[in-house]
Amino acid sequence: MDMLVSIYGPTYLAKSDYYCHTNHDNVESHMEIAHSVQQIKPSYIREILAAASDENVISLAGGLPDEQTFPIHLMKPAIESLPTMRDVFQYGPTPGYEPLIAHLTQSYQLPETHRVITCTGSQQGLDLIARAYVNPKDTIAMEAPCYLGAMQVFGLAQANLVTISQDEFGPNISELEQCFKTESPKMFYAVPDFHNPTGVCWSLEKRHQVAALCMKYNVVFIEDAPYRELRFSGDALALVSDFCPDHSIVLRSLSKVASPGLRFGTVSGKQSYLEPLVKVKQGADLHSSTPVQAIILGLLQHPEFPSHLKAIRAVYQARHATLVQALQTYLPDGCTIIPTEGGMFVWVTLPTCDTYQLAHELLANKVAVVPSPVFYPASSQATSAIRLNFTNAAPEDLITAVQRIARVLKSNLTKI
Amino acid sequence: MDMLVSIYGPTYLAKSDYYCHTNHDNVESHMEIAHSVQQIKPSYIREILAAASDENVISLAGGLPDEQTFPIHLMKPAIESLPTMRDVFQYGPTPGYEPLIAHLTQSYQLPETHRVITCTGSQQGLDLIARAYVNPKDTIAMEAPCYLGAMQVFGLAQANLVTISQDEFGPNISELEQCFKTESPKMFYAVPDFHNPTGVCWSLEKRHQVAALCMKYNVVFIEDAPYRELRFSGDALALVSDFCPDHSIVLRSLSKVASPGLRFGTVSGKQSYLEPLVKVKQGADLHSSTPVQAIILGLLQHPEFPSHLKAIRAVYQARHATLVQALQTYLPDGCTIIPTEGGMFVWVTLPTCDTYQLAHELLANKVAVVPSPVFYPASSQATSAIRLNFTNAAPEDLITAVQRIARVLKSNLTKI
Repeated sequence: MDMLVSIYGPTYLAKSDYYCHTNHDNVESHMEIAHSVQQIKPSYIREILAAASDENVISLAGGLPDEQTFPIHLMKPAIESLPTMRDVFQYGPTPGYEPLIAHLTQSYQLPETHRVITCTGSQQGLDLIARAYVNPKDTIAMEAPCYLGAMQVFGLAQANLVTISQDEFGPNISELEQCFKTESPKMFYAVPDFHNPTGVCWSLEKRHQVAALCMKYNVVFIEDAPYRELRFSGDALALVSDFCPDHSIVLRSLSKVASPGLRFGTVSGKQSYLEPLVKVKQGADLHSSTPVQAIILGLLQHPEFPSHLKAIRAVYQARHATLVQALQTYLPDGCTIIPTEGGMFVWVTLPTCDTYQLAHELLANKVAVVPSPVFYPASSQATSAIRLNFTNAAPEDLITAVQRIARVLKSNLTKI
Repeated sequence: MDMLVSIYGPTYLAKSDYYCHTNHDNVESHMEIAHSVQQIKPSYIREILAAASDENVISLAGGLPDEQTFPIHLMKPAIESLPTMRDVFQYGPTPGYEPLIAHLTQSYQLPETHRVITCTGSQQGLDLIARAYVNPKDTIAMEAPCYLGAMQVFGLAQANLVTISQDEFGPNISELEQCFKTESPKMFYAVPDFHNPTGVCWSLEKRHQVAALCMKYNVVFIEDAPYRELRFSGDALALVSDFCPDHSIVLRSLSKVASPGLRFGTVSGKQSYLEPLVKVKQGADLHSSTPVQAIILGLLQHPEFPSHLKAIRAVYQARHATLVQALQTYLPDGCTIIPTEGGMFVWVTLPTCDTYQLAHELLANKVAVVPSPVFYPASSQATSAIRLNFTNAAPEDLITAVQRIARVLKSNLTKI
C-alpha cells in the first residue's frame, strides 16, 4: 500500500506513514484483518521516500501534476455558483450527476448500448471493476512493469496476476496471445497512452492487434487512460476500446489535467458491464460528491478548457524536453531512455544493478527516484531501471537531479 | 442493492433503475460477476418505489433530509474561498485533509491512541471496515430490524449475519450475550441513536451493558451515529463507545444535518483499528475530495453552526410531532408506534398482515412507505410494520398521508 503512496511523493508518504505501522497492527488490534488485506506487501521503498521528505532532496519519485497548472480560474464560476444550486447538496443518483452524465455521454460519443458512471477518481473505477468481477484466484493479465494502484486493487481482490512484457510500441503480442490461449484471463488491464511507469504509447497496429485478440479470446480489455490528454504533439490515436467497444471498459481521469484533489474519474462501457459496478458503488459510498461533479461540468463546458489543455501540454512538453536532454547529456553509457511523446514519466533502463541500493545512494545524494522492481508483481521479473517524474519539479531542478543521478551512476557502474 | 436505493426515495430509484436490470446482466455480459455481487438480493420493493415516482404520491418511503435545511449560507464563505486554496486541488493524504483531521481530533476529544479518518460518507467508512476486517463466513452481529446499507456492505463481504432483537430501549441483552458466547461474532454493528428504521434510542443502561459485553467477549462494537445530532429534546447520551473506547469504531456523518450530496463522513477509533482501513482506502479511491473537506471544515468552524443544529432539530421535531399526532388520531386499534425523541423515522407496528401487499395498496392510494421485511436479513423474521419518514414531506402532506394509510389499514384489517 505504501508503494502506492509513493507515487504521490514523500510528503504524502510521511503523512500516511503516521497511519501505517503494519508490524504492530496485529499485536494491538483485537480484530484480525481480512486475508485480502494481509496479502498487501510491505513497502520496499518506504525508507527511501521517508528520507526524501528532506526539503533539500529533489524528488522525481512522485506522480503529482504541477499545482500551478490547475485550471482553478476556469472552475471558479462553477464553484461560486454552487450556493445557488441547492439540489446538488441533496442525495444524488449512484451513477452520477445527471447533467454531467448527459454531457459525458455526448462528449465520449457513447453508442446507445453504452453508459458512463462517475467515480471518486478513476482509481475508484478500477476498484469497482475488481470488486464487481474478480473472484479470488481469477486470472488478470497486465503489462509488466505496471501501475502500482492496479496491482494493489487486483491484489485486494486476490486475483492471480499474469504479466505481459512490453516493448516501446506496446505489449508483446505473441506473449499476449499465448497468455489468452493458455491462461484464459478474465480481463487484460493496460495503460496504452503514455504508460505509468514507462511512458510507452501503444502504436496503432498494437491497438488493433490487442483489440482483435480480446474479441477472439473473449477477454475484457480494461483501458486505463489517465494520461491520454497529456500528448505533446500530433493527434491522439484511437482508444484500443474503439476497436473492441463491446469487450472493453474505459477509465478516464481529470486528475492530471485539472485537479487530483477533487477526485474525479469516469468508467464507461456497455450498460451490462456497468450495472454490477453501480450495485457495488451503492454499497461503497452511495455516490460520489455531487458538488464536485457540478464543478467538473462547469470546467468541461468552459470555452477556455481546450486552450487550457494546450497550455498544460506545452508546460509538460518543455519539462520533458529538459529532462530528456539532460539525461542524454549526462547519463553514462549503458543507460537508455524510452522515447515518449506525453505523460508524466521517463523510464531509464540501466546496466544490471541493485536498483534499491542505487535509489538509496541517490537519496544520500539528494535526489529521489522509484526503482523498477516496485512496478512488478514479482520484483524478480524486473530489469534494472528507474522511473523519473518530470511534471512536479522546476526545469533547473530536473537538470540538477540528472547531474546527481549521473554522478552516482558513474561511480556505481565503475564498481560493477 | 436496489433496496438501498429505496432509502433515498422514488426519484433516486427511478434514476438508478435505469442502470439495474439485473435479470439480463448475465445474458449480455461477457464477464461473470463476482460471487459476492451475485449474492445481492433482487429488490422486493422496486415496483412499489418505481410506481411512487408518480408526483401525486406522497412518499414517506425515503430517507432524505429536507433540502431547505441545508446550511448552504454557512458553507458559502468556505466555498467562495476554494479558488484561493490551490493546495486542496492537489493529491492529499489518504486519512484526510490535515486541518480538518486536526479539528475533528479535538472536537471528538480523541485519546492519544485514537485517530479519525475522513470518508465519502459514513457509508464508505462502513464499507472500509467490512473490507479491512471481514472474511467470507465471518460472523457479524447486528440488530433486527437493521439499516439496509449495513446489510448490503456485510453482504458484499459475504459475512454470516446474526441478528439481535430490539425493544424500545435497545437490543435484547440476554440474546446479545448468548450470541457473543455461542457465535463469537467479530463485530456488533448497531445504530444506538434514533435507529433506522425503528427510531429507537438506546437507554444509558443498555449502552453500559452492551459495552461491558463487547469487552467481556472481545467483540468490536461498530457504532453508526448518523442521526445522533437529530435529538429533539434533552441532552445527548454518552456514545456506547465511550464505555468501551478500545473495543469500538465510531461512524459519524454530516449527511443528515448539513448535506448528503457532499458525501462526508468520518471513522474514528484506536490507531491500530484504523490503519487497515487506510490501506484499503488507498486502493479504493486514494482519498476523498479535499475541496469538500475544506468546505466541511469551514462549516464546522462557522460560529452559527450550533444554532443551525438547533434550528434543524426544531423543524424535524415539529414534523415528527405532526406525524405522531396524526397517527394517534387516525390509526385503527392494533397499530402501535414506538415513541422516539429524534432521528428521521417512525416505526409503526401492525396487526399481522402481508406488509408488501399493504404497501402496494397504499401506493394505489397515493402514499409510499417501506414494509418491514426489507429491514431484515431474512424477511421471515420480520414482524408486520412499516417505516415512515417525516423529514422530507410538508406537515400537511404528513397528515394527508396518515389519513390515506389509516383508510387502507381499516379496510384491510377488517378483511383479516
